[in-house]
Amino acid sequence: MNEETSLFQQIALIGLGLQGSSIARVAKREKLTDRIAGCARTKSTRDKALELGFVDSVHENPADAVSDADVVFLCSHIGSYGAITEAIAPALKKGAIVTDVGSVKRAVIRDVAPHLPDGVHFVPGHPVAGTEHSGPESGFADLFVGRHCVLTPQPDCNPDAVEKIRQFWQHAGMEVEIMDADHHDRVLAVTSHLPHLIAYTIVGTVSDLEEQLERETADDKTSIKTNEVARYSAGGFRDFTRIAASDPEMWRDVFLNNRDAVLEMLGRFSEDLAALQRAIRWGEAETLESLFRRTREFRRGIIEMRQAGTFSTTEPNEKE
Amino acid sequence: MNEETSLFQQIALIGLGLQGSSIARVAKREKLTDRIAGCARTKSTRDKALELGFVDSVHENPADAVSDADVVFLCSHIGSYGAITEAIAPALKKGAIVTDVGSVKRAVIRDVAPHLPDGVHFVPGHPVAGTEHSGPESGFADLFVGRHCVLTPQPDCNPDAVEKIRQFWQHAGMEVEIMDADHHDRVLAVTSHLPHLIAYTIVGTVSDLEEQLERETADDKTSIKTNEVARYSAGGFRDFTRIAASDPEMWRDVFLNNRDAVLEMLGRFSEDLAALQRAIRWGEAETLESLFRRTREFRRGIIEMRQAGTFSTTEPNEKE
Repeated sequence: MNEETSLFQQIALIGLGLQGSSIARVAKREKLTDRIAGCARTKSTRDKALELGFVDSVHENPADAVSDADVVFLCSHIGSYGAITEAIAPALKKGAIVTDVGSVKRAVIRDVAPHLPDGVHFVPGHPVAGTEHSGPESGFADLFVGRHCVLTPQPDCNPDAVEKIRQFWQHAGMEVEIMDADHHDRVLAVTSHLPHLIAYTIVGTVSDLEEQLERETADDKTSIKTNEVARYSAGGFRDFTRIAASDPEMWRDVFLNNRDAVLEMLGRFSEDLAALQRAIRWGEAETLESLFRRTREFRRGIIEMRQAGTFSTTEPNEKE
Repeated sequence: MNEETSLFQQIALIGLGLQGSSIARVAKREKLTDRIAGCARTKSTRDKALELGFVDSVHENPADAVSDADVVFLCSHIGSYGAITEAIAPALKKGAIVTDVGSVKRAVIRDVAPHLPDGVHFVPGHPVAGTEHSGPESGFADLFVGRHCVLTPQPDCNPDAVEKIRQFWQHAGMEVEIMDADHHDRVLAVTSHLPHLIAYTIVGTVSDLEEQLERETADDKTSIKTNEVARYSAGGFRDFTRIAASDPEMWRDVFLNNRDAVLEMLGRFSEDLAALQRAIRWGEAETLESLFRRTREFRRGIIEMRQAGTFSTTEPNEKE
């Protein structure tokens, strides 16, 4: 029996955080490549990656990492993609595939595609999987299992290149879908970007309030200790704090690069929140109850889809 | 060795949903009472409670349930407390304790206290524990383990009555604190009521949007299936759907009965959201990143508190 050929001879990873280090781990475990070259800006990240052993070489300069690669995964923050692509373009092999893991796709195409030479194939990708942890220690090979991956190739993209990236993510355990980049950005604005924005906001609001509540407590005759917000956060707030602990630089770039879709969804949310605020102020019991019944039904629909096997049965990984 | 005396001879539970049925289960398991009488409005709930065996008798009329009780737990929606208390008042034993599990405390004192006869002790309580499930099947004895319970007795309340309720919740595995009712309502507005309100809003917004996205998809050339929102909800949205699946009637009453504190917190949140919206529109990268760093720190503070054993090590129960 012949030994199977790896999907790729050499993978280059630009960025060795949660995504990059998880990709490396899954590529090693599934034997999807013979060699992995990693690039990270900071020396401590490079040292850690070598120490953990999920890369075969580390490079400070992205062009050095990609020179022999048949696939390059951009895994840094999306705001850096343009400059990185410009830097690696002259070093890319003819026939190499460039792909990425960014949470926004139209802006990534705008920033990456113009720099790529002819004969290099660009397959924009978004594995919809993550945790609130960052850095090379936070990655793990099962990050992608049972989750969805979206690819948004341009119509003129080489079909073999798309197929190879699809196979990579399928080996990682993902269900892969092809989607229009603008449509991806609108769907993710709803399912991911808006929820993160709201979680960041409420945790910021509460963090400001906590200090004030503690001052009030000092004048109180009762036996309350400090840190009440944390103590009573199991009442709903704690879920938001986990989401709002996600990578600050990554999310800064997401909001700046999917601005129009995020602002549109935020506008809708704000209108709905104002309507609910008014219902509370005027004591409109039926308005409240009917919304709450509708949202409960929506959740049931999601659970039924999941039980029907239409999508992932796993919850977001919680490692704390 | 003498057999220990139960904490209570007879417990009456008004309401046999998640809270009432969990209280019954823990009281039975910990042998905190000799007998449990349950009251529920609907026949199917009463039948189910008898079938599940966590009560010794069921009653349609709350006055029938309380007549021999030395403690009455109000476990229905808080909007019903006033009428229930009025109905049970003539049937209450001298020396009986009335307590509750409501998520708001000032309004409960307003609605309950005036109806109680002399010699009956009122100890308002709030076990901060729950799931998004409702009904007599949803209860379980471990619901309260490792969580906090707040008691908000009036200054003139009988200390022995407060102590007995404290002991009950300690037997259930809770850490019990005494707090001023207004202060409770402000703290919970932040840690629980505002997060629920926001989760309900965003799930409502997204539920409206889903239909629109599906219409767009129909005109699309790509191979997208329906129900995309559910499929990509692991990106953050799914956590919100769980919170927004909580009991509609219960939460309607919470918002209507903690109106001022909720509206105040909502006002602060809306201001902060508007500021963030502006930062996205104007591309203020540093404003975004600095907030996101602050919220990540806040989460770390919560995790450190937990690791230091300052509060519960358990996450909200997720049964789906």
